[in-house]
Amino acid sequence: MNILDIIDKKEQNQKLTYEELKYVVNGFLNGEIKDYQMSAFLTEIDLLGMSDEETLDLTDIMLKSGEVLNLNINAVDKHSTGGVGDKTTLVLAPLVASLGVNVAKMSGRGLGHTGGTIDKLESIPGFKTNMTLENFQNQVKKIGIALVGTMGNLVPADKKIYALRDVTGTVDSIPLIASSVMSKKIASGSNKIVIDLKVGEGALVNNLKDAEKLGKLMIKIGKHYNKETACLLTNMNEPLGRAVGNALEVVESINTLKGNGPADLIELVTELSSLMVSMEKGISEEEAKTMSLENLKNGQAYRKFLEWVTAQGGDISNIKISQNKKHLTAPKSGYITQIDALEIGKLARNLGAGRLTENDKIDHEVGFVINKKVGDKVEAGETLITVYYNEKTVPDEEVLNCFKIDDYEVKPKLIIEKLTNLN
Amino acid sequence: MNILDIIDKKEQNQKLTYEELKYVVNGFLNGEIKDYQMSAFLTEIDLLGMSDEETLDLTDIMLKSGEVLNLNINAVDKHSTGGVGDKTTLVLAPLVASLGVNVAKMSGRGLGHTGGTIDKLESIPGFKTNMTLENFQNQVKKIGIALVGTMGNLVPADKKIYALRDVTGTVDSIPLIASSVMSKKIASGSNKIVIDLKVGEGALVNNLKDAEKLGKLMIKIGKHYNKETACLLTNMNEPLGRAVGNALEVVESINTLKGNGPADLIELVTELSSLMVSMEKGISEEEAKTMSLENLKNGQAYRKFLEWVTAQGGDISNIKISQNKKHLTAPKSGYITQIDALEIGKLARNLGAGRLTENDKIDHEVGFVINKKVGDKVEAGETLITVYYNEKTVPDEEVLNCFKIDDYEVKPKLIIEKLTNLN
Repeated sequence: MNILDIIDKKEQNQKLTYEELKYVVNGFLNGEIKDYQMSAFLTEIDLLGMSDEETLDLTDIMLKSGEVLNLNINAVDKHSTGGVGDKTTLVLAPLVASLGVNVAKMSGRGLGHTGGTIDKLESIPGFKTNMTLENFQNQVKKIGIALVGTMGNLVPADKKIYALRDVTGTVDSIPLIASSVMSKKIASGSNKIVIDLKVGEGALVNNLKDAEKLGKLMIKIGKHYNKETACLLTNMNEPLGRAVGNALEVVESINTLKGNGPADLIELVTELSSLMVSMEKGISEEEAKTMSLENLKNGQAYRKFLEWVTAQGGDISNIKISQNKKHLTAPKSGYITQIDALEIGKLARNLGAGRLTENDKIDHEVGFVINKKVGDKVEAGETLITVYYNEKTVPDEEVLNCFKIDDYEVKPKLIIEKLTNLN
Repeated sequence: MNILDIIDKKEQNQKLTYEELKYVVNGFLNGEIKDYQMSAFLTEIDLLGMSDEETLDLTDIMLKSGEVLNLNINAVDKHSTGGVGDKTTLVLAPLVASLGVNVAKMSGRGLGHTGGTIDKLESIPGFKTNMTLENFQNQVKKIGIALVGTMGNLVPADKKIYALRDVTGTVDSIPLIASSVMSKKIASGSNKIVIDLKVGEGALVNNLKDAEKLGKLMIKIGKHYNKETACLLTNMNEPLGRAVGNALEVVESINTLKGNGPADLIELVTELSSLMVSMEKGISEEEAKTMSLENLKNGQAYRKFLEWVTAQGGDISNIKISQNKKHLTAPKSGYITQIDALEIGKLARNLGAGRLTENDKIDHEVGFVINKKVGDKVEAGETLITVYYNEKTVPDEEVLNCFKIDDYEVKPKLIIEKLTNLN
């Protein structure tokens, strides 16, 4: 076998065998296949697609490129395909744990325009995101929740391939997304998986057709490994909630856990929670939803959050947010019809809230708080958004340009579709 | 502008502007755009194609990435898209020069399964393939012929892009071949260009439809730069002539110039010569062909060859061919219906006649002499091919497997089509 023959075979649109895909993935991992060759191969997949069987094979090969955890605990995992202002995990994880469903989760750091849960948690002074597998399992057994960054050598093939996809325009390929997400979720050891698949301009997938295809493919892969998998298609045409930026998002999450959150965040969290709780407890989604809403109101979810943060060494009494802030006001009256999430994400990154390259340092104190969301009425001169900044700044005009103000009202729809128990 | 946006735009099959293509080519050349990103972009072009306008733009950008020679002499250039046993230039250049048509040519070294004219000439002891532009021009003015390796910094973008295409499965893209060949030909400064476009299994293009498309595209590019361009589509389903390997091919060329060459080589050389001479002298191709055949017979072409070799320091009295030879015989009787040129090329390379990587050393003394060509009748036990070897050897069986012997006769057709003066 050699890589040029395989590239040629793919160019002819012929199906690749398990052995051929394994040769490519392992060859790339051990350096025999060069990044420019892998890039050509990934570009072919991006343009020509892959059969479901090939995608299953690729997932299996990636999965077996590293450790596969055996948690010895039942746990439900949630994955988001990446959004701006997406602090869902911070609220959802303690919520479902407060309902007796274990969460044993690994999260990533942010890169590009989306923030990472680990970065957000690190804006809580003292919060530790590294743990041994044993301590991780013990914490889940004890309090029903643990969340870490990387642990063990899980799916090294995905790490290397993802880094290349990120710089070669191949992040939006459906089979590549499916195999990347699912190999990581399966290696992480949870027995049930719920995926929050973002759809829209700021997301990896920007149309419903592709999102459905991707969702179904991920559920099919999950089934293959006996992992019950469900998928929620959710709108990403504006940032989620009001806060964008690490500490700002933690504060918003705490407020939400105290029963005082933005409507879209509460809706998303309770939808995901009802899916996770119903899957794990075998109860109806309606019942699970009622329980979820209750625990957000009665303080149970917030108490679980405090228990969790304390268990991982964090102290929420001293979360720092930049003192430098600037209110940007609406240039005209009307209704907000659109907020460019992708652009808001990029501007937050430019403020220092995110990274352009893996080694960039993050400023946890900066970001945005959005005062007017899509569907809101606004008067000229009212605050649209508040910028929290330190050393780095962004032009006011670019921030304001993210808001579209029209003379008609729109009603945004957050939950687009739910994919469960497909045959 | 950034490379990821351009990769995305190409993925959407949108037309790229001159400025965008320039950003990519120059960015790659100065290292800002990485090889894995360029590889993704080239793979997109390979799979999705390019409009003629984009190909013209790409050619222009590549051309302007380096020096463009002004020869101050009228000269005709010939280019071959690469064949096995292709010693055409060694015969053709002195032949047209003997008819008063200037040849001021740059040639390459071989890589992969095809040999390079420069490597072949270097099997003549003393032959110098480096020259200053001034000496090069003076030699053309004096004797009508000069041939060198690289001179000046011509089309550095093509050098770097070609090296990447070679290892990423993107050598067979029509717009990439067209822009690569034509940017080099135009930069070399000749005012007329004749292209020998090989078609077949051993060639870059293996079907007639693609070959015609490529030929027409190159003529269109030539016209754009006011270079009269013609294209001969020729069969590459067996090696050209009988000799494959550097010194062996020089000897066959000398024999051909002395009027004693293989039929296919003579046919190709006289077809190309009649095109070149008619274009430059404004006479009919028939007349030019008659003159060409005459000068092969009357010794004029051979005398020009000797004058040329002497001018560049070479001495043909001491060309070395390996003394180790082995005759391989036909396992059965019948007619030769096919000789796998690609495989013969690879085996010759394995004997040491060619390179796998740029820094490999070449053994000029080794190669093959084919005794039975396609269309020939053969008896079991007759010699099919003679192997000339030194340190490296190849399995007899692999060499014999290149020959297909059947019980029916085929008549190979060398010249498939001629493309001239297209509108």
